[in-house]
Amino acid sequence: MFTTYGQEDSTFIRSCFNTALSEGKSYSDLRELCKKVGARLSGSVEAEMAVEWAFQKLNTYGFDRVYKQEIMVPHWERGTKEAAWIKTNTGELIPMKILALGGSVGTQGSLRGELIVFKHLDELIKAKPKQIQDKIVLIDQKMNEQELVTFHAYGGCYQIRRNGAVEAAKLGAKAVLIRSLALPTDDHPHTGSMHYDDKVTKIPAAALSTRDCELIASQKGKIEFIFEMDCRVYPDAPSHNVIAEIKGSSNADQIITFGGHLDSWDAGEGAHDDGAGVVHCIEALRILKELGYRPKHTLRLVLFMNEENGNFGGKSYAKWVHEQGEKHAAALESDRGGFVPRGFACDGDTKYVQLIQSFSELLKPYGLHDFGPGYGGVDISPLKNEYPGIPLFGFVPDSQRYFDFHHAESDVFEAVNQRELELGCASMAAFLYLLDKNL
Amino acid sequence: MFTTYGQEDSTFIRSCFNTALSEGKSYSDLRELCKKVGARLSGSVEAEMAVEWAFQKLNTYGFDRVYKQEIMVPHWERGTKEAAWIKTNTGELIPMKILALGGSVGTQGSLRGELIVFKHLDELIKAKPKQIQDKIVLIDQKMNEQELVTFHAYGGCYQIRRNGAVEAAKLGAKAVLIRSLALPTDDHPHTGSMHYDDKVTKIPAAALSTRDCELIASQKGKIEFIFEMDCRVYPDAPSHNVIAEIKGSSNADQIITFGGHLDSWDAGEGAHDDGAGVVHCIEALRILKELGYRPKHTLRLVLFMNEENGNFGGKSYAKWVHEQGEKHAAALESDRGGFVPRGFACDGDTKYVQLIQSFSELLKPYGLHDFGPGYGGVDISPLKNEYPGIPLFGFVPDSQRYFDFHHAESDVFEAVNQRELELGCASMAAFLYLLDKNL
Repeated sequence: MFTTYGQEDSTFIRSCFNTALSEGKSYSDLRELCKKVGARLSGSVEAEMAVEWAFQKLNTYGFDRVYKQEIMVPHWERGTKEAAWIKTNTGELIPMKILALGGSVGTQGSLRGELIVFKHLDELIKAKPKQIQDKIVLIDQKMNEQELVTFHAYGGCYQIRRNGAVEAAKLGAKAVLIRSLALPTDDHPHTGSMHYDDKVTKIPAAALSTRDCELIASQKGKIEFIFEMDCRVYPDAPSHNVIAEIKGSSNADQIITFGGHLDSWDAGEGAHDDGAGVVHCIEALRILKELGYRPKHTLRLVLFMNEENGNFGGKSYAKWVHEQGEKHAAALESDRGGFVPRGFACDGDTKYVQLIQSFSELLKPYGLHDFGPGYGGVDISPLKNEYPGIPLFGFVPDSQRYFDFHHAESDVFEAVNQRELELGCASMAAFLYLLDKNL
Repeated sequence: MFTTYGQEDSTFIRSCFNTALSEGKSYSDLRELCKKVGARLSGSVEAEMAVEWAFQKLNTYGFDRVYKQEIMVPHWERGTKEAAWIKTNTGELIPMKILALGGSVGTQGSLRGELIVFKHLDELIKAKPKQIQDKIVLIDQKMNEQELVTFHAYGGCYQIRRNGAVEAAKLGAKAVLIRSLALPTDDHPHTGSMHYDDKVTKIPAAALSTRDCELIASQKGKIEFIFEMDCRVYPDAPSHNVIAEIKGSSNADQIITFGGHLDSWDAGEGAHDDGAGVVHCIEALRILKELGYRPKHTLRLVLFMNEENGNFGGKSYAKWVHEQGEKHAAALESDRGGFVPRGFACDGDTKYVQLIQSFSELLKPYGLHDFGPGYGGVDISPLKNEYPGIPLFGFVPDSQRYFDFHHAESDVFEAVNQRELELGCASMAAFLYLLDKNL
């Protein structure tokens, strides 16, 4: 599998970066997706707009094939804006900013109850039902700011969002609130998907901003929480993955899939999550085409729908391509934001980890230094079930600022830096080139 | 010189990062410097406020010695805000945003003249006097966006700011304008220091925003430029470097100087340039003290005055310490912004480059990967004249966003990310620890 690298490789990679930095389309493409479409949760009209935007955009770049894969997706809507307050021990009413977690039931009018606060999900799980009965639970668990890779801190808190409602309802709570999964102390809640268990009462679930959690922690005595949420689940809706290809030469029947996800949460504009990944991938393919690269494998760009609340885009894609008898050589995903590139991760056999480590000298001049085992991405993960042994790769930008913006109103176009985005596009193009040549 | 590193080193470095991330003072210190003091050009009242702020701050942290070194600095003031317009071929007047370059003479009322545009300083130098005579010259030279290290792109354009006025005046121009040394297309000019030659007429010099330069480039036919600037030079003023020390144990008479600069340009708040460097250094010393580290060498923090327009802080310090017969082992500077850490550069003998490269395994878990030869910094450079062979080190954060903010109204506290700043402080503390132990 291993070849040595020559002048032609370093020259080609230099061209990828020059094209991205001097004649790049990624920043204006991202502006369109964020400002003309905006937030685009699965099942919404905006998600349909995003599908149309992507389909037309890919057509303008003149790839060999552009098409859509029809899929079914969950359809949950926030409805009218949420409202919430605390009533303090002294009777003062203080407004709180909340966001329903995705998939939550509504409150059916306003809901109020005594607030009981736990500092950790485990404390809640160990609590007695009489402590919780008819109360509103707040899980005020902080992300660990000492984790250098912020995704690890996110992983450490993920279960409060996913399972908080089930654990609180088991003990008789009326509703559950969580501290937003955010590293900074900020003013806006961060939403995300949650989960119900059919055997447990479905209670409303929402995120509070980290600042509001600190305000609550500073209060003395009993607190009442009052809120209203109008969110609801609708029947599953049809939607699409959007796909473009450059056909391979010698190994045309061997496919390298790469992509990001078109859908986003309904706060902000889905700029880092995952507008950046979408334009990273579109621009990488555009650069390879622009530079006249003829790939060995078929390079297939997939803009997945519904990563955020169900992953039906990723699951449907893997099943569909396997049923069609396709051969898949590898997959690559960008879904960690539009920040400055650090490297690539490999979820696969050691020989593939070694392969990407062999790329590091070529990519070092561009600030990439982190090549090792790691996660590929949510959208491409289902390919592992259908193609055991397939190597999955994940683009790794710097993670320090990701949880300033994740699933929140702050995730807007202006939060993405043009050069950092362009360097990501060029890194993806260079990586695809090296993967295609050396697999 | 080379020792091997053990568990004690990695544990200590982990503690530096934990302290910075969980109990850090750098972000609130930077907020104070930016919001209570703000912009602080040498000779201004705000610069005096910055000196007082730093002196009191260092005293609250209880270092072994805190004192000031009196120096003389240039005193230039912008005066009332500048105004500028172009008058197009069709007679339309369009307002332009300008900032006088630091040190420029004023216009003595309004100044107007035909605009002549050069795309490169070399084109201006080769022009004939009759082309230029009595005109206003614009040097619309772009920074090279293909440079991966943005400071290299800055270096490529630096002479248009430094020498533009001299070159244009030699050929008879009335005034010189330059395209701001900025990588993005933005709305605000970026200022910086410039230079006159006593044998050449001193003409007014100002920066235009990159967007205004593009607007001018899109115009057809002759353009008149009209502007007014009230800036002037006052007599040199007294000011101070602010200094704090932790006394060394075994090598107390051997000094390691480290610092950033207290002064800033008068646009924005000097947050990245160099508020970040100032708090990197204060926090690094605070962390070492907090963790009970007893250095071998005397660790001396110097917050230099007047880096931006004269470097009299750095020059006076080097001369002063040498006159006192002090011994200096090394120096370290942070003046490249508060962005996510990448590594450290060494301006010194190969053995020192190898020394810092030997630190890389210990610092890799924190995202630092770039250790090699490079520049130390403006403030510490004069030490080389007094102490030939002294190794100078520079902290290297990511450079991609630096020229979005450099010397402009955008360089405000909000442009600095808390985690990125804190990681820089911890990196400086860890580097000082390793340097002190292994020199």
